[in-house]
Amino acid sequence: MTPVTVLGLGPMGRALATAFAAASHPTTVWNRTPGKGDDLDATVADTAADAIAASPLTIVCVLDHEAVRSVLDADALTGRALVNLTGGSPQQAREMAAWAAGHGIGYLDGVLLNGIVGGPEAALLFSGPYDVYQAHRITLAALGENGTYLGEDPGRAAGFNVSLLDLFWTSMSGVVHAFRLGAAENIAATEFAGYAKVMAGLLPELIDVVAEHVTANHFPGDASTIASAAAILDDVITTVQANGLDDSVLSAVRSAVRQAIDAGHGSAGFTRLAVP
Amino acid sequence: MTPVTVLGLGPMGRALATAFAAASHPTTVWNRTPGKGDDLDATVADTAADAIAASPLTIVCVLDHEAVRSVLDADALTGRALVNLTGGSPQQAREMAAWAAGHGIGYLDGVLLNGIVGGPEAALLFSGPYDVYQAHRITLAALGENGTYLGEDPGRAAGFNVSLLDLFWTSMSGVVHAFRLGAAENIAATEFAGYAKVMAGLLPELIDVVAEHVTANHFPGDASTIASAAAILDDVITTVQANGLDDSVLSAVRSAVRQAIDAGHGSAGFTRLAVP
Repeated sequence: MTPVTVLGLGPMGRALATAFAAASHPTTVWNRTPGKGDDLDATVADTAADAIAASPLTIVCVLDHEAVRSVLDADALTGRALVNLTGGSPQQAREMAAWAAGHGIGYLDGVLLNGIVGGPEAALLFSGPYDVYQAHRITLAALGENGTYLGEDPGRAAGFNVSLLDLFWTSMSGVVHAFRLGAAENIAATEFAGYAKVMAGLLPELIDVVAEHVTANHFPGDASTIASAAAILDDVITTVQANGLDDSVLSAVRSAVRQAIDAGHGSAGFTRLAVP
Repeated sequence: MTPVTVLGLGPMGRALATAFAAASHPTTVWNRTPGKGDDLDATVADTAADAIAASPLTIVCVLDHEAVRSVLDADALTGRALVNLTGGSPQQAREMAAWAAGHGIGYLDGVLLNGIVGGPEAALLFSGPYDVYQAHRITLAALGENGTYLGEDPGRAAGFNVSLLDLFWTSMSGVVHAFRLGAAENIAATEFAGYAKVMAGLLPELIDVVAEHVTANHFPGDASTIASAAAILDDVITTVQANGLDDSVLSAVRSAVRQAIDAGHGSAGFTRLAVP
């Protein structure tokens, strides 16, 4: 089995090293703060350069982009492959790819979409040079059966990731705010959760509708128009304000909706907001 | 079968009248603009007062609260029951209930949560005097098998509704914005939709986690902290700005997150934002 090196032993880095070791890859690990990794089925290297030298493939998963740049040793990596699972912006991924290309390092940028490592539930995305992906796809499969290669643009995996995080964290802000509004209206959290799940459960089907309308560039308003969404948001914001709660997110949503109405799209479906 | 009157023949009012007629209730309808309802299996009344006089129970479903007040005839309704399915704020529901009580009208405020009328998928909520609900629950079951009575406070159904609409429309704004960000990163809508559905599919389980943490008043940050959410939002907003897209909703989300960090909750779970 191909040896693998993991740089960074936070919770995610530890999960990555554990998954490689479990798949019988000789695994070398390194962490900037020493003393981590002794409990793993892996060789703990003294330096990042030593760790990199032990394997043809290095995975880096640290706090952020700045930490990535500070732990990597360009000389040690030259002629080897590097997969960055740290997360960050598409721009940062492209910068890293340019840096790697300048040092003769095969670079892939990757994303663990749902934070799950290993097995059928993990959802991994990779982008970068196809030959690098092809050379290591079998090794990378130890991290999850469902790895997807998105193309040569190294920023593509990060592009997917930030777009999905946009959806996720905006939605989660709506979830926690809705619990607060419910509480202000004397609705217990457990009582609210059942209905909230039904409401959130409508989203996957609506996501398909958005994709369908965007693809057809046609946004019928028969189910719900932008104008009716504005009226609903007015009711919600009135109640939020009457309860003395923060209305800044909802007001920003309403502004976007009103801009679309001002641009003449009031009778179009809400899906119209998915395009410029 | 009990006769029923429906005031307002927009798409929703028509669906209500159709459901009552299909359940063999003699149905009388009226619409402010004449000429609607001739195709329904219902008697079309000339005036709202005539329509109300035809049945012990009147349903009103018009554009908004103002329209409700303008179509109702207090004298005709005295001694009868009125169910308002128009939608609006809890405050408006309580105002209507006070007005109805002053005229000897049995008033229920109701909500069609998902816009579905009839059958097992409809989700109806009612609030107001229990004796009024008891007297008409069998008739109202024609609108959906799963009607829920939420209590005497007439604003309670609307309270549920606005809280759920807060969740829904904030989430939908995240969905359409994510499609725009994805498009800016050269991701096709259909390609994006599959992953977006996986992301949105995480919400129901997380809603249960929020309810659990709120109920226990304990917000562990082992899965994801408020501080890590702030870092993720920074990445997303950087990419949104780099693409020249509107970042106002995401920036409002980040402000709320930063306020929680400033208040000392950075190491708590994101669920902590669901309480003051």
